[in-house]
Amino acid sequence: MIDPQHLLTMPPIITRQTLTARDTALYALGVGADELDFVFEERLKALPTMAVVLGYPGFIWRDPALGVTWQKVLHGEQSTILHAPLPVEGEIIGETRIEALFDKGAEKGAIALVTREIRDSAGTHLATSRATTFLRGDGGYGGSAEGAPAPHPLPNDRQPDATVTLTTAANQALIYRLSGDLNPLHIDPDVATGAGFKGPILHGLATYGVVGRALLNARCGNDPARMKRMDVRFSSPVYPGETIATDIWDEGAGRIAFRSRVVERDLVVLTNGYAEIG
Amino acid sequence: MIDPQHLLTMPPIITRQTLTARDTALYALGVGADELDFVFEERLKALPTMAVVLGYPGFIWRDPALGVTWQKVLHGEQSTILHAPLPVEGEIIGETRIEALFDKGAEKGAIALVTREIRDSAGTHLATSRATTFLRGDGGYGGSAEGAPAPHPLPNDRQPDATVTLTTAANQALIYRLSGDLNPLHIDPDVATGAGFKGPILHGLATYGVVGRALLNARCGNDPARMKRMDVRFSSPVYPGETIATDIWDEGAGRIAFRSRVVERDLVVLTNGYAEIG
Repeated sequence: MIDPQHLLTMPPIITRQTLTARDTALYALGVGADELDFVFEERLKALPTMAVVLGYPGFIWRDPALGVTWQKVLHGEQSTILHAPLPVEGEIIGETRIEALFDKGAEKGAIALVTREIRDSAGTHLATSRATTFLRGDGGYGGSAEGAPAPHPLPNDRQPDATVTLTTAANQALIYRLSGDLNPLHIDPDVATGAGFKGPILHGLATYGVVGRALLNARCGNDPARMKRMDVRFSSPVYPGETIATDIWDEGAGRIAFRSRVVERDLVVLTNGYAEIG
Repeated sequence: MIDPQHLLTMPPIITRQTLTARDTALYALGVGADELDFVFEERLKALPTMAVVLGYPGFIWRDPALGVTWQKVLHGEQSTILHAPLPVEGEIIGETRIEALFDKGAEKGAIALVTREIRDSAGTHLATSRATTFLRGDGGYGGSAEGAPAPHPLPNDRQPDATVTLTTAANQALIYRLSGDLNPLHIDPDVATGAGFKGPILHGLATYGVVGRALLNARCGNDPARMKRMDVRFSSPVYPGETIATDIWDEGAGRIAFRSRVVERDLVVLTNGYAEIG
């Protein structure tokens, strides 16, 4: 049984990281980028979605002190707000806290909003990452279900204004994982089939990065500084090697809605997408 | 004009490196490997060809003290002798010296044999790397042409005993370069066309690693400990995305001869290959 008061009031987790240009290029390769701006140290810019691996404390739920059934934890939604262009190297400090908890009952589980403030060593606020995490085994602790952030609705009355299709490589997860998420689910066939998948799945946040590239290309002229926010809900995993088509709806004033499908299986993998472009 | 006495008697270059499992997996991805043994830290083995990036001092020829026309330097041959299986992490010490010089005259240039002894911090001798380097602008200094190592002859009286074909990815050089050779020739189209190529070429040592995988697969049961030596002459560059076919001739007693061709252009890219298998 989780103790909501403990989870909500424990001290933030501080994560210090030395980011190198090599790390920045490797992240870009991990989400399939090959543009010189994103992989060549002589003209390097950071992809805005790289925020998800900056100052990242790792998988925090396995700590017994949290009392969470960590085996049942799923990353449900990811929101990233960019306050400044990300650096390509330097000291990064992440400050992670559980911002809110919602109780959907013993059947559905609990929802945790995990917020991470990302700053450089000078204190510049670079980004805010918010992960909506499903604690599927920890509902029914007597809390409220009210107030969970509502996902952005997609237009249902019109066709998308644009669709961008990007491939992923068969070794995409092998590269992506070197940016820090070493969960064997993404490389070990035994672990993957044990979890009910036909094989290793792509990291949700790798898919997020691929889709970020689609938005960057279609709506930001590939200029990372123009991406201000990117929110998604993960609805189904992608297998490395599959093709991801992202449908984009322009909503005016730099706001866009989007969702992404795996072309080979005609399956929505990211939905309720929302981005802000500057 | 080079001063051969200076080059041959200067103190060895000592290069210390902290190798991580991430580096080892990244090297493997850089030469196109995706077998779990080579990319998954829970069962990681180092590819034997990784020796070429261990304790590597970088491109030494640009140092004005050496008096070499560095713009005309070409990597001609690579020999690697494995004394022990390579570690997947730990401290590595490289000791690099110019072992010999040969003068082929002002037209053809000079040849330098650059030898690097690679050890771990306990002093275990891991590997010997010998690069035959063509100093194309530095011949005619009055030295001898005699004694340069002769390349291994390929059988010319019979078909190969096996041919192994491996693909390279369009982003192969982008990944490989993160193992340390950041020469822009392998990423920047302007630099590449300025050097007379139609675009960025794959690192010769990346091709060497791809071919090493072919030998490992065909003749070592993918067990890195069985590879004892691998020598090649670089004859033409590979473009990322091309297919490399390696022809293998068994010569008995664990010795093999090999050469590699780019299938798309029917062009020999590595020749005079020689390997010893334990």
